[in-house]
Amino acid sequence: MLKQVGSFDPVPEEDLLDRIGSLRQLMSDSGIDLALLVQNVDRFYFTGTMQKGIVAVPLNQDPLIFVEKGTDRAAMETPLALTPVRNDREIGDILRDRRLLAGKVGLELDVLPVAVFERMKRIFGFDRHGDVSEQVKEVRAVKSRFELDQIVRSGEMLTRVFAKARDEVREGRTELEIEAPLVAVGRAMGHQGFLRMRGMNQEMMTMTVQAGFTGAVPTLLDAPITGAGVTPAVPQGSSFKKVERGIPVTIDYGGGYNGYITDETRSFVVGELAEAFRRPYETAWSIIEDVLAFAGPGTDCRDIFQRAEKMARKAGLGDFFMGHGEGKVAFIGHGLGLEINELPLLTPRHERLLKEGMVFAFEPKFVLPELGAVGIEIDLIVGPGNVERVTTGPLDLVCL
Amino acid sequence: MLKQVGSFDPVPEEDLLDRIGSLRQLMSDSGIDLALLVQNVDRFYFTGTMQKGIVAVPLNQDPLIFVEKGTDRAAMETPLALTPVRNDREIGDILRDRRLLAGKVGLELDVLPVAVFERMKRIFGFDRHGDVSEQVKEVRAVKSRFELDQIVRSGEMLTRVFAKARDEVREGRTELEIEAPLVAVGRAMGHQGFLRMRGMNQEMMTMTVQAGFTGAVPTLLDAPITGAGVTPAVPQGSSFKKVERGIPVTIDYGGGYNGYITDETRSFVVGELAEAFRRPYETAWSIIEDVLAFAGPGTDCRDIFQRAEKMARKAGLGDFFMGHGEGKVAFIGHGLGLEINELPLLTPRHERLLKEGMVFAFEPKFVLPELGAVGIEIDLIVGPGNVERVTTGPLDLVCL
Repeated sequence: MLKQVGSFDPVPEEDLLDRIGSLRQLMSDSGIDLALLVQNVDRFYFTGTMQKGIVAVPLNQDPLIFVEKGTDRAAMETPLALTPVRNDREIGDILRDRRLLAGKVGLELDVLPVAVFERMKRIFGFDRHGDVSEQVKEVRAVKSRFELDQIVRSGEMLTRVFAKARDEVREGRTELEIEAPLVAVGRAMGHQGFLRMRGMNQEMMTMTVQAGFTGAVPTLLDAPITGAGVTPAVPQGSSFKKVERGIPVTIDYGGGYNGYITDETRSFVVGELAEAFRRPYETAWSIIEDVLAFAGPGTDCRDIFQRAEKMARKAGLGDFFMGHGEGKVAFIGHGLGLEINELPLLTPRHERLLKEGMVFAFEPKFVLPELGAVGIEIDLIVGPGNVERVTTGPLDLVCL
Repeated sequence: MLKQVGSFDPVPEEDLLDRIGSLRQLMSDSGIDLALLVQNVDRFYFTGTMQKGIVAVPLNQDPLIFVEKGTDRAAMETPLALTPVRNDREIGDILRDRRLLAGKVGLELDVLPVAVFERMKRIFGFDRHGDVSEQVKEVRAVKSRFELDQIVRSGEMLTRVFAKARDEVREGRTELEIEAPLVAVGRAMGHQGFLRMRGMNQEMMTMTVQAGFTGAVPTLLDAPITGAGVTPAVPQGSSFKKVERGIPVTIDYGGGYNGYITDETRSFVVGELAEAFRRPYETAWSIIEDVLAFAGPGTDCRDIFQRAEKMARKAGLGDFFMGHGEGKVAFIGHGLGLEINELPLLTPRHERLLKEGMVFAFEPKFVLPELGAVGIEIDLIVGPGNVERVTTGPLDLVCL
């Protein structure tokens, strides 16, 4: 049924088996005997379907993909065997019958609500449990050829939308008036409709446009530029602020193709860029050139952050690098995949080496309090000897 | 700063104090001495700001609104006193100093991830805890005058978007081509950008368009019509399915104004409605007329469901009422507010009496397997003696 309307490629069976194998290896390393996955995205990653249920990955038996609802659809979406059930009690019975609950059960403790956990514990009756979310994130950090293809297609969506942005950024137009038709362009061509960010309270706009001081308002969101939004109830994203001559307009947009997210930022200006933003913009550009020249497999993400920060400080912009005051964030990039906050996190706080197949957004940005923000964000794939851009379109400031 | 661009009304102090008072009453009834609220929406509801932090509501002292990030903004958004902190350890110190952790601590166990809970327990060091989410939901179920005003404005957004839909539904156009410009209309006028649904794995599209069999594909989402979506990774929402003559197009859209969500559905058809959908559509219409005539404060939600189901069965449509097969849902309506799944839930499964000030979406829908779906969804406010529509626009089938 889906095939009549969908343009997606199903996840290849080989990929699914590789992923399950990698998870088992990490489970074994940390003494987890059974992973019970509940979160949408994790279940999709290991099975190719997101239909309602639980995915059980035992260390030494075939995975059990329990489906409670959407079974016909699940059967079309995954090449793996399904176990249809009516409810979670039935799942408990099957797991107990197979003696899978005797050891240590790994759960997604970073996202699993306490009430759901307590119900699982009561119904399934396991004695020992631990967190399997780190292992899941590690497996997901390195992308397969298939995944890289999806990410490139997601990036094509983004390139087409940014190309259209030239026609929408106009003096006097509101951030919302710029955003709305651009998001529509992406959606009409098949954008999946929303982006995902892992964790409690993590909400994500598909696009945010900042046309001045709204780019400098710090909010709860852990991002250098979040936008002011239209209400305290959704304190992020585009607002009614209008474009002014000389003040940069930053557009941050995420492609969404077959689950895979890209996330880039371009800066636009009507007329000539105001003096205050010139050095920040040029510095962001130099930081981008630098990372493209030196990063590759084995690079420590701490170094990437620190080199960029050093360049910012040298330009006298240390206070404005990656936010200002309490709005400052402690990273210059983040992994991309099915969620927008995957590994690696490019932070000075702990060691993390780049590996071939990782994909991350790299976003040198400067925030000038009360004035606005400027910067560039690009998505990079770690290749065999360097980093390569996901998208092909121009990155430089668009003067209108 | 915000006031320059925002069109929102801040939450009145009186409302905030009433809400806190009502929560305390329910806490007292269930032996909870301190509520610690972490979730975005709950914190916003009780304080008027969503900036980063924790809200502590003791039974017998003033609430402590801890803010870790976005403090300037929080100060603009709430009339209540703030307690800026650098991190959660500082929150723990203050709570211990005030001897607030000795009793039973109420937490939002329905949404609080285990890892966050464990960190709170470690850092704050409370001994006893319980779930305060039911109490929070009960307080939120009854809306104030201010909230009803926000909901009416959210509904105006929806009415304007549905009026535009007449221009977008065309034979041969895809669901996505219809959705994209309509969502843009709402966003450009200040729609908050996304809708919220409480709970793990609860993801929500702002609009979904179904132009035939895609309205009859069951998915994980607990809704009668969810749409097929464009990928198994986001298995809901509009798709590339094209509009066909005679087959109804259902458009389900949620307004979003100042946090408040409305949620209505209209049906459209190009040409004359195909025979198979006529009786379902007429029955949905009769069910709407019936609820408007009989529901009001004190009505048992079970009765509302059962009267509608009886009408569906009488029309020979019992199998298709509120979904078909495993896609069938056990409710005909749901409360609306800051989240799309608030109380009351209109289900036959347990007693729930309507109260003045409640707001709910009422959605008699019929799903014909392989063929499509048809129905109407309206939002209702429980008034002093009846139920009243939130919006004013036409509800009937639009023939194009």
